[in-house]
Amino acid sequence: MRMVDLIEYKKNNGEFNHQQIQFIIDGYVEGSIPDYQMSALLMAICFQGLTLKETALLTKVMEESGDIIDLSKIEGVKVDKHSTGGVGDKTSLVLGPIVAACGGKMAKMSGRGLGHTGGTLDKLESIPGYQINISEEDFINQVNEIGLAIIGQSASLVPADKKLYALRDVTGTVSCIPLIASSIMSKKLASGADTILLDVKYGNGAFMQTIEEAKELAQTMISIGKHCHKNTRATISSMSQPLGNAIGNSLEVIEAIETLKGNGPEDLRELCLNEGSEMLVQANLYPNKKEAYQALQEVMDNGKALEKFKEMVKAQGGDVSYIENTELFEKPSAIIELTSKKTGYIQALEAKKLGIVSMKLGGGRMTKEEDIDHAVGLVLNKKIGDHVDIGEKLLTVYARDDLSPELLDEIYQSYTIVDEFVEKPILIEEFMK
Amino acid sequence: MRMVDLIEYKKNNGEFNHQQIQFIIDGYVEGSIPDYQMSALLMAICFQGLTLKETALLTKVMEESGDIIDLSKIEGVKVDKHSTGGVGDKTSLVLGPIVAACGGKMAKMSGRGLGHTGGTLDKLESIPGYQINISEEDFINQVNEIGLAIIGQSASLVPADKKLYALRDVTGTVSCIPLIASSIMSKKLASGADTILLDVKYGNGAFMQTIEEAKELAQTMISIGKHCHKNTRATISSMSQPLGNAIGNSLEVIEAIETLKGNGPEDLRELCLNEGSEMLVQANLYPNKKEAYQALQEVMDNGKALEKFKEMVKAQGGDVSYIENTELFEKPSAIIELTSKKTGYIQALEAKKLGIVSMKLGGGRMTKEEDIDHAVGLVLNKKIGDHVDIGEKLLTVYARDDLSPELLDEIYQSYTIVDEFVEKPILIEEFMK
Repeated sequence: MRMVDLIEYKKNNGEFNHQQIQFIIDGYVEGSIPDYQMSALLMAICFQGLTLKETALLTKVMEESGDIIDLSKIEGVKVDKHSTGGVGDKTSLVLGPIVAACGGKMAKMSGRGLGHTGGTLDKLESIPGYQINISEEDFINQVNEIGLAIIGQSASLVPADKKLYALRDVTGTVSCIPLIASSIMSKKLASGADTILLDVKYGNGAFMQTIEEAKELAQTMISIGKHCHKNTRATISSMSQPLGNAIGNSLEVIEAIETLKGNGPEDLRELCLNEGSEMLVQANLYPNKKEAYQALQEVMDNGKALEKFKEMVKAQGGDVSYIENTELFEKPSAIIELTSKKTGYIQALEAKKLGIVSMKLGGGRMTKEEDIDHAVGLVLNKKIGDHVDIGEKLLTVYARDDLSPELLDEIYQSYTIVDEFVEKPILIEEFMK
Repeated sequence: MRMVDLIEYKKNNGEFNHQQIQFIIDGYVEGSIPDYQMSALLMAICFQGLTLKETALLTKVMEESGDIIDLSKIEGVKVDKHSTGGVGDKTSLVLGPIVAACGGKMAKMSGRGLGHTGGTLDKLESIPGYQINISEEDFINQVNEIGLAIIGQSASLVPADKKLYALRDVTGTVSCIPLIASSIMSKKLASGADTILLDVKYGNGAFMQTIEEAKELAQTMISIGKHCHKNTRATISSMSQPLGNAIGNSLEVIEAIETLKGNGPEDLRELCLNEGSEMLVQANLYPNKKEAYQALQEVMDNGKALEKFKEMVKAQGGDVSYIENTELFEKPSAIIELTSKKTGYIQALEAKKLGIVSMKLGGGRMTKEEDIDHAVGLVLNKKIGDHVDIGEKLLTVYARDDLSPELLDEIYQSYTIVDEFVEKPILIEEFMK
């Protein structure tokens, strides 16, 4: 078999078999297939696509390119979730504790943020002492004991994806549904859970711009799950505006804590209760979503959800006093309230633009190597559909310095305020399985 | 400007401007743009194409990536020709002398063969002593004195094409009309002639499989010529069967010598007379093709064409006695006559298969590094449309050893013999300008 022939084959819309995909991935991981051949193949795939069968085979071969986590020593149903990412998306910080408090076992490996999107690991690291690198043994023991752990992804998990993703990032081959689907699902499968709930986001702050693309990606990942006999479901949810009110690492942890207490912003709370109840039903822990939803509300109201979060933070070396008293989180020197320049209804609040503002404040990173500032960010007072008066508070910026005129402009440009009444947008479009 | 953005831009069918193309080619030649980004872009171009304007800009930028030959010291009209290559294509060996004998100045840089196609340089090197590497000064002096020189392409000519072609060859991005057109035309433009006649071949032994593709490639190259103010015309000719009867280096030189004497195979002779007269009219040396054609016939008949070939061979260090007496060329030990297993008309005679047989005998090379055997090859006795009786001689194989059963099979499989009468195929489809 020669890689150049396989590239030509895909260029001419051929369908790869298992042996061909194995040859490609093995050769690429071990280095006998060079980057320049792989990037040509990836571009051909962007144009010709992969069939569902090819995508599932690719996912399986990628999964098997490295270690596969064995969670069999954990008693009970191991649940996992994955969000395609966005701005202000702190659902894992809420979903983990509430689902664990209702009997789900969540042994979760998370990622870092890049560009305008945040990452769960960065958020958790704003809690002093919190360790994201723990041994597999400690990880499994912790989930067995308290039902929950959120750690960094092991370096030996799906090396094929690491190498491929780095190449896709610099060759214009990121936005391709079968490649995105196999990248996400290979990591989820290698992480070893029994059930997977995917949150596929669409809108200007998300990777998928339209509902249709989000549904296609979700359907592709569900098909991969079926092919690999893994119970996989998906939520299609909007990322046209930031999720919740807080953007920025410690600010999002504080908001997650409020949500665990039942006091969080309506949209974040609803998304967590809906996705959480889907996960509990998917894991056969509750007979229907209504009962699961009630149980999740209960653990928010009776303090068990927050308690579970504290148990995890403590187990992973974090300072629990910060969870008990969120005033302890460092506040940056410049806390700036920005007010509306216009009276009307908020029609648009562009998540991506605000994500980039937060990154520029220091809360995110442009390249993987950069450090981030856990204290900076934004807290929104008004969201789409809200009425605002001229001079009324729109948002608070947490910064290290005064804002440059350019950054101020970027913030105001994220808002579109109109005279006519604007409906609150739909957050959850659909559940798919 | 970032290469990854330019890749995305072409992937989304954007049209590059001069500055963008300059950035890409300069960056690739100097090494700041890596192979893996260039191969992704090349694959995107295979799918999205290039406009005629982009193709012309790319050609010009590639031409200017290295030295440009200055032929201004040569008096008269400098004519050049290029064939897209095939099996048995020794036209340059005939066209050069006959056109020079009629007043054209041909300062030609040629290439080597690869795969099933032969190369003019390899053929000339079967003449003992013939030097393909001579200085630019000697090259120009020789053309001024005798009107003809055929040498190897200078290493400093179009370095962008050398690097790009090597990459395309291993990334499945060879077959793409704007890339083929810019590759050929950048070298032709840099070679400095006043007029260019392209012979774009189609059929199973050619790079372009269909007449339509050949016409599209020709039209693209003519448009590039127009854009660069270079007098460019094209012939569309068939390569469904080998050109002439001989395949293999010294065998083709012998056939070219016979053709220069006016005794060559009909198809080769006609193609050379037609292309030669087109070149003479294109260069304004003759008022019309009829007169040019007669003049070319005359130099074949009166010995001036062969004399011109001998002058070139002598000037470039070759042993002229081989031209005077072609019996001097080495004959390999195994000269094998193969006869027909069937009576009927030859319907197909696959050029590519026979080109590969000649390569396997040692007459061609699979990779650029291989040496070749100048003495081996095939001489056909029957071609498409000919009648053949069972047991009648079909072809002669010049080999170093007995033929393996597999190779014998391959040779016989190149022929399709049917009961019904078969018309002789059309060789020249069209002239375009």
